[in-house]
Amino acid sequence: MGLSFEHVTLGQRVLFGSGQAAENLASEVERLGARKVMVIASEQGRATAEQVTARIEVARFYDDLAPHVPIDKAEKARTAAREGGVDLLVCVGGGSTTGMAKAVALTCGLPVVAVPTTYAGSEATNVWGLTEASRKTTGVDDRVLPASVIYDAGLTLSLPADLSVASGLNALAHCIDSMWAPRADPINQALATEGIRALRRGLPAVRNDPQNLEGREQALYGCYLSAVAFASAGSGMHHKICHVLGGRWNLPHAQTHAVVLPYVLAFNAGAAPEAARRIAAAFGTEDPVAGLDSLRGALAAPRALKDYGLTAGDLPEAVRLILPVIPESNPRPVTGENLLELLSAALNGTAPAAPPSHPHTH
Amino acid sequence: MGLSFEHVTLGQRVLFGSGQAAENLASEVERLGARKVMVIASEQGRATAEQVTARIEVARFYDDLAPHVPIDKAEKARTAAREGGVDLLVCVGGGSTTGMAKAVALTCGLPVVAVPTTYAGSEATNVWGLTEASRKTTGVDDRVLPASVIYDAGLTLSLPADLSVASGLNALAHCIDSMWAPRADPINQALATEGIRALRRGLPAVRNDPQNLEGREQALYGCYLSAVAFASAGSGMHHKICHVLGGRWNLPHAQTHAVVLPYVLAFNAGAAPEAARRIAAAFGTEDPVAGLDSLRGALAAPRALKDYGLTAGDLPEAVRLILPVIPESNPRPVTGENLLELLSAALNGTAPAAPPSHPHTH
Repeated sequence: MGLSFEHVTLGQRVLFGSGQAAENLASEVERLGARKVMVIASEQGRATAEQVTARIEVARFYDDLAPHVPIDKAEKARTAAREGGVDLLVCVGGGSTTGMAKAVALTCGLPVVAVPTTYAGSEATNVWGLTEASRKTTGVDDRVLPASVIYDAGLTLSLPADLSVASGLNALAHCIDSMWAPRADPINQALATEGIRALRRGLPAVRNDPQNLEGREQALYGCYLSAVAFASAGSGMHHKICHVLGGRWNLPHAQTHAVVLPYVLAFNAGAAPEAARRIAAAFGTEDPVAGLDSLRGALAAPRALKDYGLTAGDLPEAVRLILPVIPESNPRPVTGENLLELLSAALNGTAPAAPPSHPHTH
Repeated sequence: MGLSFEHVTLGQRVLFGSGQAAENLASEVERLGARKVMVIASEQGRATAEQVTARIEVARFYDDLAPHVPIDKAEKARTAAREGGVDLLVCVGGGSTTGMAKAVALTCGLPVVAVPTTYAGSEATNVWGLTEASRKTTGVDDRVLPASVIYDAGLTLSLPADLSVASGLNALAHCIDSMWAPRADPINQALATEGIRALRRGLPAVRNDPQNLEGREQALYGCYLSAVAFASAGSGMHHKICHVLGGRWNLPHAQTHAVVLPYVLAFNAGAAPEAARRIAAAFGTEDPVAGLDSLRGALAAPRALKDYGLTAGDLPEAVRLILPVIPESNPRPVTGENLLELLSAALNGTAPAAPPSHPHTH
């Protein structure tokens, strides 16, 4: 019952303020003493990047990007940075843009200032990813952690509501799943709890009105915390299930997460009372499952995997593939039987059931 | 009403586990690749330091320490580290010991692994302090932030209950006051909330039985979070009041904090609903003031400044000295009149009053 953990806090400066990106970036560039800034942004994101960098001197805009950071694109960008005598990378955009800045930082050791314009969360982690011949390699290196992140919810206003809610539900899954992930500890649990609270406030507001700046701020802040918590705690049961379903049956990422999450929460809550208490408190409800359910209702989140092509016949194989990858840290033992039950319920969208042995959590 | 903040997260590794200090230290020394370790510990702390460093090679034990890190002692230690070719500082002890390691790191740039044996909290901050001719200089420098902190509640079992509770109440004051300190933001508020929760659980357990390891763990964990939150958010109204009272009338530090805290909380809570909500949730009560009051009752905390030598005649001067140093960030405007009221109540130990304009918070 003792408190025992190892927690690594990643050092990073976060500047958060709507409409303040250009100003905050200028102050960061000055603080870091940078003289040759390479701005990484996609062609479509160029106008935003120019607006954000209006108050700094830019040595070069770099836009030769592609999703998942192909290694040859990364090599070209590294050469450009090296030959240009660049001393700071500023990335303005979504996950692929941040990913490219990280790929350059990985070998060049340059500091990165990230200005995210989506809810990707990559800017808050020390995880990098590269793709070669359609194989993705990922790794962890503190050199790729952006020194500073500048959040400006104004830059996210053009994200469509559907995509925003899908990203937000994914972030919510990171927060909830990190409660019982392999490296879960009270510190990343507290940050995940704060993330749930922010997402619970922000996402319905964004859904109702994508131009609602306060909602955007809460959603962006919650997504940041979800990335911090997830990077710290690792992947739990929920992410293992979704990874298998997505990989084997090509189910859509966001929808799979949205459907599976309440089933994993109901499955684990009774065996993880401290996590359940934190999640419920963040939702402002007595019961964590009820809290999540009410949020999903407000967001009109998808409710059944059968709507995305999974069939009952797939479930035995799913159980076989998922069972061996469930983390040992999972608070409730997972068996072929209770996993099949969970997946059947998620398939059909029936109400998530608490385990019979823990009736008090329902 | 927008969300706007700048939050600096200090990168640090925390290894927390009772009875695991020697093991965790060995793994940190290996991870850091250190070959010449100087262990800083007081003469009285030597036995503990030897126990904690039993599994590593120690180049030198250094024990020429004094409270508040006199500059000449720091210079001697720096010379010893330099001449000894030291590549890692390990400090085992309380605030003065950690302070000496920081003083050496400040000029030598050596990494520090801190093994705290008290609730001082200095190990979690980038603040250093040096004393020259009885003048204290403090500063902030990331070089003095310990790379790793190893918490072992077993090392705190010999701390007397009274001292432990006094330190813990001081940590609680850091948590609560950081809610409205100049650099308060939702991230350090969330960490402060988690700190309150841990202290609320740990301190009564330690008071009832100083050998209660679970209580010690919660208290130690809470003190760590209070230091993180306070270093991030800065000094609020409470600390400004206590600093003036302690400096001008030589009131005892811990007791002054314990008495003043509920009055500041009651004063501000109605004007800071989000902070009040967080504090109440951490106490598990509806009302934050009631939650704090119940904890103070369980701890038999001191209740009136008059018991420590302050008199009604001192209050006008106290108001004059305190008024100009109240941070602008304070959620409720402070006037000579309401400050005098607050101090009078704290002097006499009468029940903390919520402001009349916010009757719903009482």
